[in-house]
Amino acid sequence: MGGSLAGALRGKCRAVVGVARRAETIETALARGLIDRGTTDTADGVREADAVVLATPVRVIMRQMHEIAPLLPKSCLLMDLGSTKSQIVAEMARLPNHVQPLGGHPMCGKEVSGIGATDPAIYRGCTFILTPLPRTSEEALALGRELVEAVGASPLVLAAERQDFLVATVSHLPYLLACALVATADALTSPDPAAWEIVAGGFRDTSRLAGSDVTMMVDILLTNREEVLKALEVCQAQLRCLTRLVEAGDEDEVRDVLSAIRAKRQEMFP
Amino acid sequence: MGGSLAGALRGKCRAVVGVARRAETIETALARGLIDRGTTDTADGVREADAVVLATPVRVIMRQMHEIAPLLPKSCLLMDLGSTKSQIVAEMARLPNHVQPLGGHPMCGKEVSGIGATDPAIYRGCTFILTPLPRTSEEALALGRELVEAVGASPLVLAAERQDFLVATVSHLPYLLACALVATADALTSPDPAAWEIVAGGFRDTSRLAGSDVTMMVDILLTNREEVLKALEVCQAQLRCLTRLVEAGDEDEVRDVLSAIRAKRQEMFP
Repeated sequence: MGGSLAGALRGKCRAVVGVARRAETIETALARGLIDRGTTDTADGVREADAVVLATPVRVIMRQMHEIAPLLPKSCLLMDLGSTKSQIVAEMARLPNHVQPLGGHPMCGKEVSGIGATDPAIYRGCTFILTPLPRTSEEALALGRELVEAVGASPLVLAAERQDFLVATVSHLPYLLACALVATADALTSPDPAAWEIVAGGFRDTSRLAGSDVTMMVDILLTNREEVLKALEVCQAQLRCLTRLVEAGDEDEVRDVLSAIRAKRQEMFP
Repeated sequence: MGGSLAGALRGKCRAVVGVARRAETIETALARGLIDRGTTDTADGVREADAVVLATPVRVIMRQMHEIAPLLPKSCLLMDLGSTKSQIVAEMARLPNHVQPLGGHPMCGKEVSGIGATDPAIYRGCTFILTPLPRTSEEALALGRELVEAVGASPLVLAAERQDFLVATVSHLPYLLACALVATADALTSPDPAAWEIVAGGFRDTSRLAGSDVTMMVDILLTNREEVLKALEVCQAQLRCLTRLVEAGDEDEVRDVLSAIRAKRQEMFP
């Protein structure tokens, strides 16, 4: 996500500087034309920055922001791309005063990650959630909006708690359902070699998110636990309802429930 | 699915004759070049057929085969495209002796249906399950295989019960999970207008099957009830495991389980 953002920003600001742990990542980013220059030395990379975007897993972001903040010039915007925001924003509130913190969460992504999977076009047309703090200046929020719009995304300002509630259902629950589906197929049908020949588009799409980066997902689940558990509870109740429907086998009832759900799906994606 | 099969077969056999209830369907099929000729008169449409393929919902297939069989010439192949096979094959066993019955189930499809959504390319590269009966002749099975290969699919011969067990997990369970996800979003987040702005690719893919044709799905669920209930039971147990994992919040344990599931997903789709 960080490499893709860099590539999308390049040419639209003074310079895009990539900071990574490994020199090979920088070399790849340069070779792919994602950054203007790169370094493994964080202090060197951020010294003259107007904006710094942390693109690491949520709990790494929560640690890194404190390491990086003292190195930043006055009024530098410090953003992140983490999928959960309440805990990140709580950490941001503790940053030194010369830094301008702003939570960020682009609602796009792929189940593949790393510098080899970058795609600067990924932000085009996506909603990019921004969660400002009370201390975030209007100028810093405006710069955040400008950055989001520069990569082709639409900024949506939300309170951190509201975003965490929403993404638990819209993003984290689908991941866990995909995982449950893969685990079920593994337990029930994988021993039959024919199962591997018949997995089709439906299974592929419904299980796609189970291929997401595990380090990223562990951090997400552990930092949005309560909201995720609430979404799981409601979803399990819905599954029990559907199970009872199939059990009872009342055709009209099955048709009514499935029709209402289909209509909702079509309302969501007209 | 029927219109797409017709289009894929056209030019590869003597003639493709479309039979539909409504004259407009025939007109559309002709205009789209899917059939050589069409009729709303079933007897007229099947009188000289070498093979007849029923492409209606499962329980309609179970009724139609008995209406159509007496109209068929001797040794005519009678196939279907229904997603569940045990009940269909049991009905096929009762057909008059001059007919050669063969269950069929192409493992492809779209959540849109009807003559307006035809795509003859949909069968290319897909696995097409065939469930012969003890009474099905070698010649009839060979013709079924030939038909499947003519549209670019790969035939896979399975016992009807084995196919029903497999597709319950691989195809019907994903549909019910997609439905549970949409119902959960409807209950939890849909009242918040921001939810509609942030539904992204992950939710879209995981919920895609909830848009499937309801009449088709009602028939599938009611004719594969026991296998679907078994798959639901295992999946609900997996979801409870994942819930307990998130609740306990043991980082190493979460990482281990999610990593194993991710590896399985990658094994399924290398």
